[in-house]
Amino acid sequence: MLSAPTTTSSLTTFIILSIFTLAFFPGAFHFVLWAPYNLIFPSPQEPGRPTSVLCESPNYCIAPTRMTWFQKQFTLPSKSRGSYLITDTIVRELPEIKNYKVGILHLFIQHTSCALSLNENWDEDVRADMSDALDRIVPEDKRGGMYRHDAEGSDDMPAHIKSALVGASITIPISNGRLATGTWQGIWYLEFRAAKHSRRVVATIQGEKL
Amino acid sequence: MLSAPTTTSSLTTFIILSIFTLAFFPGAFHFVLWAPYNLIFPSPQEPGRPTSVLCESPNYCIAPTRMTWFQKQFTLPSKSRGSYLITDTIVRELPEIKNYKVGILHLFIQHTSCALSLNENWDEDVRADMSDALDRIVPEDKRGGMYRHDAEGSDDMPAHIKSALVGASITIPISNGRLATGTWQGIWYLEFRAAKHSRRVVATIQGEKL
Amino acid sequence: MLSAPTTTSSLTTFIILSIFTLAFFPGAFHFVLWAPYNLIFPSPQEPGRPTSVLCESPNYCIAPTRMTWFQKQFTLPSKSRGSYLITDTIVRELPEIKNYKVGILHLFIQHTSCALSLNENWDEDVRADMSDALDRIVPEDKRGGMYRHDAEGSDDMPAHIKSALVGASITIPISNGRLATGTWQGIWYLEFRAAKHSRRVVATIQGEKL
Repeated sequence: MLSAPTTTSSLTTFIILSIFTLAFFPGAFHFVLWAPYNLIFPSPQEPGRPTSVLCESPNYCIAPTRMTWFQKQFTLPSKSRGSYLITDTIVRELPEIKNYKVGILHLFIQHTSCALSLNENWDEDVRADMSDALDRIVPEDKRGGMYRHDAEGSDDMPAHIKSALVGASITIPISNGRLATGTWQGIWYLEFRAAKHSRRVVATIQGEKL
Repeated sequence: MLSAPTTTSSLTTFIILSIFTLAFFPGAFHFVLWAPYNLIFPSPQEPGRPTSVLCESPNYCIAPTRMTWFQKQFTLPSKSRGSYLITDTIVRELPEIKNYKVGILHLFIQHTSCALSLNENWDEDVRADMSDALDRIVPEDKRGGMYRHDAEGSDDMPAHIKSALVGASITIPISNGRLATGTWQGIWYLEFRAAKHSRRVVATIQGEKL
Repeated sequence: MLSAPTTTSSLTTFIILSIFTLAFFPGAFHFVLWAPYNLIFPSPQEPGRPTSVLCESPNYCIAPTRMTWFQKQFTLPSKSRGSYLITDTIVRELPEIKNYKVGILHLFIQHTSCALSLNENWDEDVRADMSDALDRIVPEDKRGGMYRHDAEGSDDMPAHIKSALVGASITIPISNGRLATGTWQGIWYLEFRAAKHSRRVVATIQGEKL
């Protein structure tokens, strides 16, 4: 009779402690229970499998969603007719590339009389030859009557045609934080108008973070 | 002795209530505990960071995975040789574009004697000049002997070559629910065959939802 | 007085059992509570909606993140000047395509004197005609003085120009585990150098898994 309250009290203390443990560390028991299993079979981390979500508490979990998008607009240095190597400009504008384990960089020029391309990154003669060769393939109208669209200058319609041939966008794979370009590949901006123009680029990076 | 059961009873009531609270609102204690912290430092929402998962209960959580894919096939209005502005057709076929905060629209034409491109969206003379210029760059065989492949008509082999030069697909960035094209950029469908053809397009949108 | 400890004991047993149930199956009560609702309204599975996360326990949840990336580099069979159909090579190198419900395959060639394209997959005459037509559009320098860049052979500068015209990468939609190419579309590798070259390709698949 005298010991009964004492027994209840120590049991009650245990119960209350348990309830508080459960309330503030709801995953604690499970953590202990699953610890040996999780040590032996760590949760899969490779992409493609469903990713496990780490929860600090039942209503505060961290999902390792490393698939992300990044987008930025910027203006290229103003240039007149010619082919320009812009790899360094692009890499400097987009330090975010180094955060991606695997992904794709999409570069898109918002104009119709210039182009983006990938080509030789060493000999600048290649760039001069490229501009001249495109002039031979799509000549300006010297005698008249070649193009209907001539109100914006004799270099405008050839510029639109070159732009259709070379293209307004390029896509480059990203591997382990770097552009996966070949040894001799550089990013080119081809300006087809004779006068200086400032061109806007939309860069979109999508991928899985490191 | 008489009050002991009463004491036990009110304690028991508290314990039972606590257990039920824990059972049905397992996050309640934590929510209260973390509330001041979460008010001061709200969970990061910007892309790139691991996203937090909101759980209504331990086995019913909502992960804000807003990275999604959408794909649709459709047929372009039937056309014979020429360059056509199809921006309106594309935007009408793909109202889903407006759901994406950042993403990329990929348009792919499932044929080898036509092309998709981005070019000037205002003066239709540009489109007529483009078709004529491509005919000069890749002429039809007037005298014979120019192309081996001539069984499908003299316009077929030049169409394949133009298709290789201009390309079967375009990719356009999406920003805040709109195509991030420049002021003068429109989506072009270039038909290289003389006879009318119906062309199928596969549109794929990928991105992060608004 | 005699029955009091007994009452306490059975209540205590119930409380202890409840605490253990809560500790080891924290979602059990909620599961029972929400079962009828979840039966009537199963969690949304379509892409675009926030995905629900299934938790076995509060700190072990499975998020059905089916958005994944895959990347692989490989070398194409060594070839000299010509146009080659490589659809079978690509599909054999990338069995992973069949795991994707919707996605995009990006093929990128790490060189600047060859190209990737999509074109006719049946008549090999088309491929021979293509190489010849590109030679007419971008001729080699027979008389000298046409190109500044001639140290690497008379076929090198024309190869760079053709590469800019045709392009270093292609993107192909994936639908239900297959490339969504048209009936007559095949993947082409165009080699522009006269001598045999081994070319490296970076293949990137991104998409939502089946």
